[in-house]
Amino acid sequence: MCRFLAYLGTPIFLSDLVCAPAHSLIHQSMHADEGKTPTNGDGFGLGWYGEREEPGLYREIRPAWSDENLRSLCAQVRSRLFFAHVRASTGTATTRANCHPFGLGRQMFMHNGQVGDYPRIKRRMEAMIPDGLYEHRLGTGDTEAIFLAAMADGLAEEPVGAMGRTLGRVMGLMRDAGSSQPLRFAAAHSDGTALTCFRWASDDRPPSLYWRRVADSVLVVSEPVDERSAGWQKLAPNHVLVARPGAAVEVRPFGVLSDM
Amino acid sequence: MCRFLAYLGTPIFLSDLVCAPAHSLIHQSMHADEGKTPTNGDGFGLGWYGEREEPGLYREIRPAWSDENLRSLCAQVRSRLFFAHVRASTGTATTRANCHPFGLGRQMFMHNGQVGDYPRIKRRMEAMIPDGLYEHRLGTGDTEAIFLAAMADGLAEEPVGAMGRTLGRVMGLMRDAGSSQPLRFAAAHSDGTALTCFRWASDDRPPSLYWRRVADSVLVVSEPVDERSAGWQKLAPNHVLVARPGAAVEVRPFGVLSDM
Amino acid sequence: MCRFLAYLGTPIFLSDLVCAPAHSLIHQSMHADEGKTPTNGDGFGLGWYGEREEPGLYREIRPAWSDENLRSLCAQVRSRLFFAHVRASTGTATTRANCHPFGLGRQMFMHNGQVGDYPRIKRRMEAMIPDGLYEHRLGTGDTEAIFLAAMADGLAEEPVGAMGRTLGRVMGLMRDAGSSQPLRFAAAHSDGTALTCFRWASDDRPPSLYWRRVADSVLVVSEPVDERSAGWQKLAPNHVLVARPGAAVEVRPFGVLSDM
Amino acid sequence: MCRFLAYLGTPIFLSDLVCAPAHSLIHQSMHADEGKTPTNGDGFGLGWYGEREEPGLYREIRPAWSDENLRSLCAQVRSRLFFAHVRASTGTATTRANCHPFGLGRQMFMHNGQVGDYPRIKRRMEAMIPDGLYEHRLGTGDTEAIFLAAMADGLAEEPVGAMGRTLGRVMGLMRDAGSSQPLRFAAAHSDGTALTCFRWASDDRPPSLYWRRVADSVLVVSEPVDERSAGWQKLAPNHVLVARPGAAVEVRPFGVLSDM
Repeated sequence: MCRFLAYLGTPIFLSDLVCAPAHSLIHQSMHADEGKTPTNGDGFGLGWYGEREEPGLYREIRPAWSDENLRSLCAQVRSRLFFAHVRASTGTATTRANCHPFGLGRQMFMHNGQVGDYPRIKRRMEAMIPDGLYEHRLGTGDTEAIFLAAMADGLAEEPVGAMGRTLGRVMGLMRDAGSSQPLRFAAAHSDGTALTCFRWASDDRPPSLYWRRVADSVLVVSEPVDERSAGWQKLAPNHVLVARPGAAVEVRPFGVLSDM
Repeated sequence: MCRFLAYLGTPIFLSDLVCAPAHSLIHQSMHADEGKTPTNGDGFGLGWYGEREEPGLYREIRPAWSDENLRSLCAQVRSRLFFAHVRASTGTATTRANCHPFGLGRQMFMHNGQVGDYPRIKRRMEAMIPDGLYEHRLGTGDTEAIFLAAMADGLAEEPVGAMGRTLGRVMGLMRDAGSSQPLRFAAAHSDGTALTCFRWASDDRPPSLYWRRVADSVLVVSEPVDERSAGWQKLAPNHVLVARPGAAVEVRPFGVLSDM
Repeated sequence: MCRFLAYLGTPIFLSDLVCAPAHSLIHQSMHADEGKTPTNGDGFGLGWYGEREEPGLYREIRPAWSDENLRSLCAQVRSRLFFAHVRASTGTATTRANCHPFGLGRQMFMHNGQVGDYPRIKRRMEAMIPDGLYEHRLGTGDTEAIFLAAMADGLAEEPVGAMGRTLGRVMGLMRDAGSSQPLRFAAAHSDGTALTCFRWASDDRPPSLYWRRVADSVLVVSEPVDERSAGWQKLAPNHVLVARPGAAVEVRPFGVLSDM
Repeated sequence: MCRFLAYLGTPIFLSDLVCAPAHSLIHQSMHADEGKTPTNGDGFGLGWYGEREEPGLYREIRPAWSDENLRSLCAQVRSRLFFAHVRASTGTATTRANCHPFGLGRQMFMHNGQVGDYPRIKRRMEAMIPDGLYEHRLGTGDTEAIFLAAMADGLAEEPVGAMGRTLGRVMGLMRDAGSSQPLRFAAAHSDGTALTCFRWASDDRPPSLYWRRVADSVLVVSEPVDERSAGWQKLAPNHVLVARPGAAVEVRPFGVLSDM
């Protein structure tokens, strides 16, 4: 498992969420409460939108709790839309290329969960990525494969539909491989304008996701970074949240077509 | 806190203790039971005596649980006397130079515990290291400083006396600095022939140490690597264990002169 | 480009070749004379046969010239058959999984050279790897893909034939992709008993390889590690060298079937 | 030796100087022309002033040429005053704590050169650092020691005088230790407002420094990042350059009192 957070709103310093709160993401890298493991020490990553077309990406294999670069960077960088992720590997190697978030052009994506029996279907998941996108496959993990496959199916234009279809295809591969393990999927996507967060599982145990709206800002987290529990709302299983600047947050049912 | 193990006896593969048991040192790097923290992910180190005068040293900042080099090395290297350590930092940086064990010539040393108020007395601890040894000070931590100071006071020749005196001096520095924190000290030293393990604290909470003798081999651990609890003996607080090839294991009271 | 060395013979310390000579492999990591670049600082790797069925593997992304673990390990480990490699990336990421040598069971493989237009044919090269071996694909580079494809075609049983056929298939992929770049191939394989070294190119510039026999030992290098030039012989372009314990070194023409 | 650059002026992206030019700092990490070695692959560092009181610091041990985080960060971060440095170690370990620039509060400092016989006078150089600043000594190198000693002597308030006195003291230590090696010093300091660059040596071979003024911006480099040689001026040996926003660049003789 992993832990992550995504923010959209008035530009703030990344440290306001990644470092400062009592149960910040850095704190969660060693003491997560609701994840599969308390430790998420297999690397971390930041992605943030600034002045450029493409977001900045900073991914490192060191545990987040011991990286001074992470703290310095978060203290300096202000952003209106950013992702942060601490990783607990579900089997693939601890390399920068397997850390989240993943970026392609203006798109960013990160995930917490698992693809059941991934080693057995890894090859077929990679086959879902068309040639033109395959050169962007730098790692060996399931999240990157899902991201690139979904990009091929319109993730940049209509993330909800594209991800629903892509997860459906992955479920098909798992079924064809005779897997009895679940696909668990808490994830976030952005195109630099909107933030789309998914919470879905093929069983009844999707990884946790909470969200909070304060004035113009929306924050989505694996687990609350502070104790103001009154402000946090759970994202219901099998739902998707879409946040856009200046618009109300949308929460809708999200389904996956398993027969594709 | 940290976790470690030391072995003296018939040559065995390092993996037999570092990797293979149910509660191996690698397992303890993420799930320690008796340490201050379950996570000891701030680097690790191996030291082993082979054909050379000096022991081999392998120290790395990655968590032990995710380092494939560690596993491959342990599977290949056989040794009659070796140290292995997984680190949980008590404040100093996560760098190779701050990982244990420390080596100097044929001597090796590692530690689990803390020096109370170390930042306030760091400079005076370093002043205990004479010029000739100071160039070997590569890190910034308390363990290395204790090691080099004890080396100056005869650690290589009579480890028990040298360490007693050195810890006494450190206690004096802590007292002079007005510290109310304890000095906790579970440690191991070797000169390539004997293994000397210390368990001491200025309060009543020295870090745990267990040992077991099987035929010609002696194993000393922070916490048992397997469930054969009948075989493990606790090293009593304020005692020292000395093991030599072909001799009975000695366990004696160990004291520190606090007024030096 | 990269630089490497392979040794078969009376067990020696790895440091005798990797660290000690005037133009050791570590020296070549910063000052190579005959490679494409003087700098080979994109990681390094060691592989050595010891008591186990599988060889030990140690691969790291740091430049070889600044890694104290490498020096300590080489000083301690004695082996009758080992590989050492310092890497200059031809485009793929600097990660441990892209460092050489590659290992699978008892087999080891390393390479110096290039596969022309690799990014364009990467996917088709990976398709040469059957499912059962694909799970061992941990990196993203060309060498690992060649190795696993050749393993599928009998590299463990008859390395020369398997590699000839595999390179022929790679040439075919390059031709189909319309590439005008060369395939350059200096490489070494071992099954733990024999050492097979290849020197081939599709143009007239295969990377350099030299060899020397002294008593029972054979050493093959990208460039001589010392100045005893009288002892070094060049391996001619498009030739293969096979060394076995207790047998004469064989040097034979090596060809690649480009029409497969 | 090392290579560095410092910029003061209209805010620009760090990549405009660190990554983009033909002979950018990243290019100089592998192909420096005027340094002691072409390779400066023992780590790198960035320091930049933004919205905060303290500058951001990003230091890493990987060679600059292979670090994707460096490129991404430089592409995103815009600053009015920043330092960038690629390191070639003169003996001390390759750790983040030994990479430049060094920061303390609002002050930044970096250096290219050497302190002759540093290992022999290291301890006495450290003794120049008063207790209050000694806890900020995280590394083991000469540059950090000079920086902290100069901070104790007024570097933040009057950098030219403080550095002159500090270097004089270091020269005295070298003389007392019987050293015949030179002290070579190309360095940059900032307090977040002014940029002060030094070029001095105790022999006649101070490391190179060039500067260029374009409109409101001043750029100081170890070697020119582009070929517009008409625009670059050499900073003469034993001179100091001071740049402040909205003021003319000052270049004055800089001397060191060797008899202190």
